[in-house]
Amino acid sequence: MASSATQDWKTLATKHRASLDAQIPEEWRLTAEFKASLPADGRLLQADSIRKSGILTEAELDITGKYSAAQLLQRLAWGDVSSVDVTRAFCKRAAVAGQLTNCLTEHFFSRALKRAQYLDEYLKREGKVAGPLHGLPISLKDSFCLEGIPTTVGYVSFLKNGPARENSALVNLLLDLGAVLYVKTNIPQTMMTADSENAIYGRTLNPHNTALTAGGSTGGEGALQALRGSILGVGTDIAGSIRIPALCCGVYGFKPTSNRVPFGGQISGYMAGIPGIEGCAGPLGQSIDDIELFMATVLSGETWRYDSTSLSAPWASNIPANKSVEGRLLTIGILPEDPQYPLHPPVRRALTSAIESLEKKGHRLVQLPPTLADSNTSTAYASRLAWQYFTYSPFIDHMAPSGEPPIASVAKGASPLFTGELPISEEDVFKKISALHLAKKDYSDFWRRTWTEYGLDVVLAPGAQNTAVPHDTYAWPPYTAMWNLVDYPAIIIPYGKASAELDSETVVSKDKVQPSYNPEVVNGAPCALQVVAPRFQDEKCLSAARIIDQDIRL
Amino acid sequence: MASSATQDWKTLATKHRASLDAQIPEEWRLTAEFKASLPADGRLLQADSIRKSGILTEAELDITGKYSAAQLLQRLAWGDVSSVDVTRAFCKRAAVAGQLTNCLTEHFFSRALKRAQYLDEYLKREGKVAGPLHGLPISLKDSFCLEGIPTTVGYVSFLKNGPARENSALVNLLLDLGAVLYVKTNIPQTMMTADSENAIYGRTLNPHNTALTAGGSTGGEGALQALRGSILGVGTDIAGSIRIPALCCGVYGFKPTSNRVPFGGQISGYMAGIPGIEGCAGPLGQSIDDIELFMATVLSGETWRYDSTSLSAPWASNIPANKSVEGRLLTIGILPEDPQYPLHPPVRRALTSAIESLEKKGHRLVQLPPTLADSNTSTAYASRLAWQYFTYSPFIDHMAPSGEPPIASVAKGASPLFTGELPISEEDVFKKISALHLAKKDYSDFWRRTWTEYGLDVVLAPGAQNTAVPHDTYAWPPYTAMWNLVDYPAIIIPYGKASAELDSETVVSKDKVQPSYNPEVVNGAPCALQVVAPRFQDEKCLSAARIIDQDIRL
Repeated sequence: MASSATQDWKTLATKHRASLDAQIPEEWRLTAEFKASLPADGRLLQADSIRKSGILTEAELDITGKYSAAQLLQRLAWGDVSSVDVTRAFCKRAAVAGQLTNCLTEHFFSRALKRAQYLDEYLKREGKVAGPLHGLPISLKDSFCLEGIPTTVGYVSFLKNGPARENSALVNLLLDLGAVLYVKTNIPQTMMTADSENAIYGRTLNPHNTALTAGGSTGGEGALQALRGSILGVGTDIAGSIRIPALCCGVYGFKPTSNRVPFGGQISGYMAGIPGIEGCAGPLGQSIDDIELFMATVLSGETWRYDSTSLSAPWASNIPANKSVEGRLLTIGILPEDPQYPLHPPVRRALTSAIESLEKKGHRLVQLPPTLADSNTSTAYASRLAWQYFTYSPFIDHMAPSGEPPIASVAKGASPLFTGELPISEEDVFKKISALHLAKKDYSDFWRRTWTEYGLDVVLAPGAQNTAVPHDTYAWPPYTAMWNLVDYPAIIIPYGKASAELDSETVVSKDKVQPSYNPEVVNGAPCALQVVAPRFQDEKCLSAARIIDQDIRL
Repeated sequence: MASSATQDWKTLATKHRASLDAQIPEEWRLTAEFKASLPADGRLLQADSIRKSGILTEAELDITGKYSAAQLLQRLAWGDVSSVDVTRAFCKRAAVAGQLTNCLTEHFFSRALKRAQYLDEYLKREGKVAGPLHGLPISLKDSFCLEGIPTTVGYVSFLKNGPARENSALVNLLLDLGAVLYVKTNIPQTMMTADSENAIYGRTLNPHNTALTAGGSTGGEGALQALRGSILGVGTDIAGSIRIPALCCGVYGFKPTSNRVPFGGQISGYMAGIPGIEGCAGPLGQSIDDIELFMATVLSGETWRYDSTSLSAPWASNIPANKSVEGRLLTIGILPEDPQYPLHPPVRRALTSAIESLEKKGHRLVQLPPTLADSNTSTAYASRLAWQYFTYSPFIDHMAPSGEPPIASVAKGASPLFTGELPISEEDVFKKISALHLAKKDYSDFWRRTWTEYGLDVVLAPGAQNTAVPHDTYAWPPYTAMWNLVDYPAIIIPYGKASAELDSETVVSKDKVQPSYNPEVVNGAPCALQVVAPRFQDEKCLSAARIIDQDIRL
């Protein structure tokens, strides 16, 4: 029985959600009638549910649906459209998306509209933009802090911390660049699963099919982008947390080299400074152009002024995609499929189709040699090493203080994800840190040598074994986590859809942990490619990805 | 009694030294007569001992004494001078410098001359240079590995490792850039004192005054540069190991942001990957132009191809020294003197004189507010935090296996360098790592805020309390270590000399650890300034330092 002093976690969560719901203007709320009319198959995008909600005007559907971020910025700068109009349109679309998929955590629409009004007045008064992101609404993963807004990362026990007292470094930078902030987006409890569900904000649904996961940990952002409730969003990625939602939701998601985009001042609940794999912040969006716009603008913003942990190298916009090959032709390494993590048929089909298109275009494709699952150059080995990094330091339990139970995907994580031993067996902490470091360095060296020996520009790889899968079955992400281990920039390019017809063969996972493939269940789910470049070659990663993105569609 | 199997460390060291001595051509050896004629006051530079040795021809004195690295490279590229001639000149000068000051560890003159010959033939045959450093001899701190050459870092027990089997990353890069490698330079046992002495190669002497330390841990390089036995050398710096020899020996020394210059593949004897302060590689040389030449050339060499740990951002040659101030005028913060580490009179005089000159030139100088020694924004606090980082993980004793005793400065280090408690008292390793990390981040944030609040371009600071001091008295380097803690780029600019006349007041150190000041003893020792910029602003650090270097001399 909960006393008044120690309120039940459910009561606290419900109260917090109710106060957020109350801040959604009446006329932006979905009617019971409309909710009843939602498609039974959960295919919100196919059903055009945003438009059918009737909440957005034609002009608002136009603003949010038709333009790239670059085009919106141009229209804003020219005064063709006001920031208030753009902001209101995205606030409304995000509010609808939130009601459809639970993709939001905190929202602050009236604050955003005030900010937009200030920027509109600034433009009128000064005759110039306040910054290169003047007037553009940008969404943020819940882990970022905005003064006056709670940052709970979904933990009920963090509600007692009250509103944030300081902005995260990136928030200050985005504001200085002229952006408008309006929503934060949903994440999983612990931020270490691919199912964005927690005790406060509930579970994010995939707008392609609400029976499937939207991915995680930046899952709310994935769903919001897919519904175009945001034109540019910011997530974080330590094992795939930007790229998994991107591939699940059919949008672009870029994990840059760590600390190029300011990461500081976020809330995570983890012990700070433990050596291992560094998280990084990066954009999700509708196109590579918009992803690059974000990177170039943010990295040209003197990040060192905002974050002492950022590596403040400006974006080198004019790096050629390829110095060694004439014209725009690339040398592309193809990551071998790891036998422990076989690709599901639609994922393999997407990759094969892309390779065929790229070969036709004259790119040089290099099938990298297969590695044994046991070998310390395999994806499986990198996975185990990453897993050991994620689990070797003490876990701080932020669930126990409120009594909230673990969500299903967190509870599952307690079962062993791997057969076989962890790479490092040292007991002494210092020896273990050193041995892990050397193992990581050896693996990084393997990739460095691979790049130089084959003269690669980029590696083309799957983003996962699978597409979006039913809730709580995503399990472990080897094909994204391996690149976090070596801190290589990697982008997800959406490409095609799973097809029960073309990918008709059921695949049952042998390890009872990783997801199985059921053609009917994931039919229509987005497929994706991953393009990877060496550490600090973020510019090259995006310029090569742009070429690939074009050439696979022609 | 040493058995044949476990040879006495002295025997092993003597044998190794003898084999090195035997590789110095007879005609490059100092005669007993010349040695007897060396100045009794130890002022080798003042006595022009290199020239007086009679070993170098006029042409060789000219090549080694008159040109900058940039000028030599131009002459080499034009074929005005051959790499063999340049290399032989520097080999001879280094051989003489080594005999005068014990500044060398390994040398490989005949190998260098063969390499030079190859490059000369390449230029003739191909009609172009082999790389931007074509034919230029570059010296390296002993910790760098060259295939076939031992890397002992002065430990007798490391002699049994035999010759290195692989090049360090930077060695491969320098060779690809066209450089000639010819000597490695002396370091202290443990590489953690400012006295470059060890059981194999002995003690490096300061060519300004052999009774004074040459600094450390890149001390051999400092002495070699002062004698112009090298035009560009590479050291490493984790608490001041590039900057201390530079300020002791009156040359330029630059500690870049860590991992911009490839650091990988060196030998240290420390446990790898322990979180704390990262060492970094950087140049010592005769001018800021040459320092920048090194940085720009190395960082434009696609460092990621050589070292998986390098942050491969190209050198941004065209960054303006200052965006905010018109023309070339800088806003320069002046570091307050820490009451726990008061400046010796010649150091204070150099700083005061520089400030006066800079003010006359119209620069904006900002005296940063003093901090209490106890405050966690003070130099003393940063020192304690750095010290705790250096000492919190297990020390691996590489002396015990050979039985070599600790050198005097290492033995002294066992006594407490500080009064007061260490910043972090956690016992649990993970908690300690986390608490140290947060303390370091807070200190980094203090400097980030200081830079932005005052609109600073750079900070002007002493490089140490003292100039070069008598051997084994340098003690702890607070004014260099503080910038390692935050990983800011920092350059030493030589500026003036200690004067028994102008700096006549004796100062006795209160803490019995840090050096006292005796006007007669250090009379004539070089003075220096330190110019510091925020992390990753290496380009700005050097371009501002160039302006300062000019304006303090006019």
